[in-house]
Amino acid sequence: MAYETILYSVEDQILTITLNRPDKLNAYNATMQAEMIDAFDKADADDNVRAIIITGAGRGFCAGADLSSGGNTFDRDARRGPVRRNADGSVDYSDEMVRDGGGQVTLRMFKCLKPVIGAINGPAVGIGATMQLAMDIRIASENARFGFVFSQRGIVPEAASSWFLPRIVGISQALEWCYSGRVFPAQEALAGRLVSKVVPHDELLPTARALAKSFMEKTAPVSVALIRQMMWRLSAMDDPMEAHKIDSRGIYARGRSDDVKEGVVAFLEKRPAEFKNKVSADMPDYFPWWDERGYK
Amino acid sequence: MAYETILYSVEDQILTITLNRPDKLNAYNATMQAEMIDAFDKADADDNVRAIIITGAGRGFCAGADLSSGGNTFDRDARRGPVRRNADGSVDYSDEMVRDGGGQVTLRMFKCLKPVIGAINGPAVGIGATMQLAMDIRIASENARFGFVFSQRGIVPEAASSWFLPRIVGISQALEWCYSGRVFPAQEALAGRLVSKVVPHDELLPTARALAKSFMEKTAPVSVALIRQMMWRLSAMDDPMEAHKIDSRGIYARGRSDDVKEGVVAFLEKRPAEFKNKVSADMPDYFPWWDERGYK
Amino acid sequence: MAYETILYSVEDQILTITLNRPDKLNAYNATMQAEMIDAFDKADADDNVRAIIITGAGRGFCAGADLSSGGNTFDRDARRGPVRRNADGSVDYSDEMVRDGGGQVTLRMFKCLKPVIGAINGPAVGIGATMQLAMDIRIASENARFGFVFSQRGIVPEAASSWFLPRIVGISQALEWCYSGRVFPAQEALAGRLVSKVVPHDELLPTARALAKSFMEKTAPVSVALIRQMMWRLSAMDDPMEAHKIDSRGIYARGRSDDVKEGVVAFLEKRPAEFKNKVSADMPDYFPWWDERGYK
Repeated sequence: MAYETILYSVEDQILTITLNRPDKLNAYNATMQAEMIDAFDKADADDNVRAIIITGAGRGFCAGADLSSGGNTFDRDARRGPVRRNADGSVDYSDEMVRDGGGQVTLRMFKCLKPVIGAINGPAVGIGATMQLAMDIRIASENARFGFVFSQRGIVPEAASSWFLPRIVGISQALEWCYSGRVFPAQEALAGRLVSKVVPHDELLPTARALAKSFMEKTAPVSVALIRQMMWRLSAMDDPMEAHKIDSRGIYARGRSDDVKEGVVAFLEKRPAEFKNKVSADMPDYFPWWDERGYK
Repeated sequence: MAYETILYSVEDQILTITLNRPDKLNAYNATMQAEMIDAFDKADADDNVRAIIITGAGRGFCAGADLSSGGNTFDRDARRGPVRRNADGSVDYSDEMVRDGGGQVTLRMFKCLKPVIGAINGPAVGIGATMQLAMDIRIASENARFGFVFSQRGIVPEAASSWFLPRIVGISQALEWCYSGRVFPAQEALAGRLVSKVVPHDELLPTARALAKSFMEKTAPVSVALIRQMMWRLSAMDDPMEAHKIDSRGIYARGRSDDVKEGVVAFLEKRPAEFKNKVSADMPDYFPWWDERGYK
Repeated sequence: MAYETILYSVEDQILTITLNRPDKLNAYNATMQAEMIDAFDKADADDNVRAIIITGAGRGFCAGADLSSGGNTFDRDARRGPVRRNADGSVDYSDEMVRDGGGQVTLRMFKCLKPVIGAINGPAVGIGATMQLAMDIRIASENARFGFVFSQRGIVPEAASSWFLPRIVGISQALEWCYSGRVFPAQEALAGRLVSKVVPHDELLPTARALAKSFMEKTAPVSVALIRQMMWRLSAMDDPMEAHKIDSRGIYARGRSDDVKEGVVAFLEKRPAEFKNKVSADMPDYFPWWDERGYK
């Protein structure tokens, strides 16, 4: 798959995905959606990718949905033909055609087995803001701006942001930003814990790359992959016993692996460990432990 | 319904509910409970109400439960006759008469379709502190004080505060305040993220009104109503797919609305949008998407 | 039970549990696990214990799992014989022998009926870091250091930390620390909200004891016990109605108790309350309200 709207570049085992429609401030369209999903599939399958950085080409990060269809932009029936109807004429919301495109991207990110770092280089509004929420950590350039502008267009937040945003910044901050729909600067994003760090523009990618390296240098790729899914999924359970069940499988299965024997021995010998297990081949037998939930 | 214990005043589309028993520091009683619930019903039905501010008359915000019944204050059987018993003589906790009154108010707030801002003007203890937790955002006067004093009376936190408080301030801070039951100042509430801002007393209502305005000026009322329910409810789900299902319905249904066509076109034409959909009549067909859970 | 690896000392109704293998930086082993669980059983049964402090003897808090078995440390089959297999030869993960030991300790802490304060005196890595997460509040000496080092050993976080850690510090911070596995200082733990306070080393235990006292001096032990379980458990529910159900039982049952009558009357008379209800005997009839979830 050759990409039209994104760049896909792996260097030093770090994949950088660059949203690449700079003349449109990287506005999001159906092609970008398909390419982002494909890029994550590719990254998960490639053991040479140890971490992922997402950034934007040019002045913006992502200006939101491409509005070149004007008032019909969000009218699915007008643009792609009617979705399924029930016998009584009401919309059959279980039709997959109803599915929000932004959510398909963030749910794909959610399943990713590599750390995902947002390097937010400039304005990020609408889906440009919400797509970041399924990334693990966001670092902002001083030039970044953010806007959950949905209320100002008459629409609703998407990309599963109602699940992600309050978990990241708390319910009060999430509501304050979404009610007003206003665009706010990087420092406010930092104060509200949407981003972990704000850096001078020139230091954005170096900072993101240094962070990515810290996740790779001394660590076992299979451990990192498990950590991503454990933390996101198990913290959402209603009882710590659910985490204990999965931990137990992890400690048991990984505890017998060559990686752990190497990890412990290398530590005792005060030398760097060489981990050989691969995400593509060596995930433990109990993984995935969840049933992937379908769109009803 | 003429109110005895609260004031209900709408100005510039902002409803201000004022707890109004100033000689009792606005202590909470059964009348106030019924009037608060009625006021929220009225506010949700009135399209001229775009946001709600809750504050207190006089020196206090709310001093907690009215203790004029002394040691019997919390003894429901002594005050209102025995609740239902099971055959073996044990309490039938499914009797609606068992229900905590404070929780009936906060659950009503939870269902509200307008932004709710607490303007905490003075001491707020017991139900005066817990009733705030179902508000979206709290702003405090420098005169405000807070106390989750239940442990010092021998009782337990109520008004569903065990659900709300750790979500807002984190589990460690919630426990620290509730274990000790001590009263603490506005600045500590700010440091602990219970309130978003502390302002000089005279600026409290102007600040709350400015915030309310920012939620109304450029926004679609139906979007704001959906945002409130989406953020609170979907962030509590165990999987982001549950948010994606509801987002998808929202993007689809709202995407075909006149509001969205106007919102996008107005944005492209760089003019203010005029949103016409009303909360009273134009909520989308999939709303509410949840089954309201009963008191068992 | 005489303890080999911990000290158990009650003074002024505060239990201090001291991890006590100072020559091994209090490294965790199976004996310590059994003794910690026993200590919590004992503490819950003893009404003279009103709060619990956990600290370490000597220079460290807890250096993590005792690695004296080298590469076999985490290989359960190698060390204790094979766990149950299914007919097809795969591991039967429902075998209780699979259970992570650290999780057995944190799940026991989770059920505790007294406030639990961590007084983190020095380095805390691996299980030394994760066991803290089921404590209610952590205070750190300036000498404390923390490391969720699992990725650097090839293993996974345990002790139900995937449930606890993101709830305490947020998902982004949790991932950042766990991906890298790096050891970080007390000030970073404070900035990330892992600990509530950092104090000079000499002030660590006095600060922890003062906090413990603030939870005991004016409060009813049964209220404090209920608060612990309500806040941790009900905040994890998917709907505030679940908290309302339990609040209602609490307000009803405690509202008729001698403790509450005393608490209200003492408040009105402006004198200290004398609470007589005991955790060992006077928990309300609806407690526990949950079904303890088993290891599947």
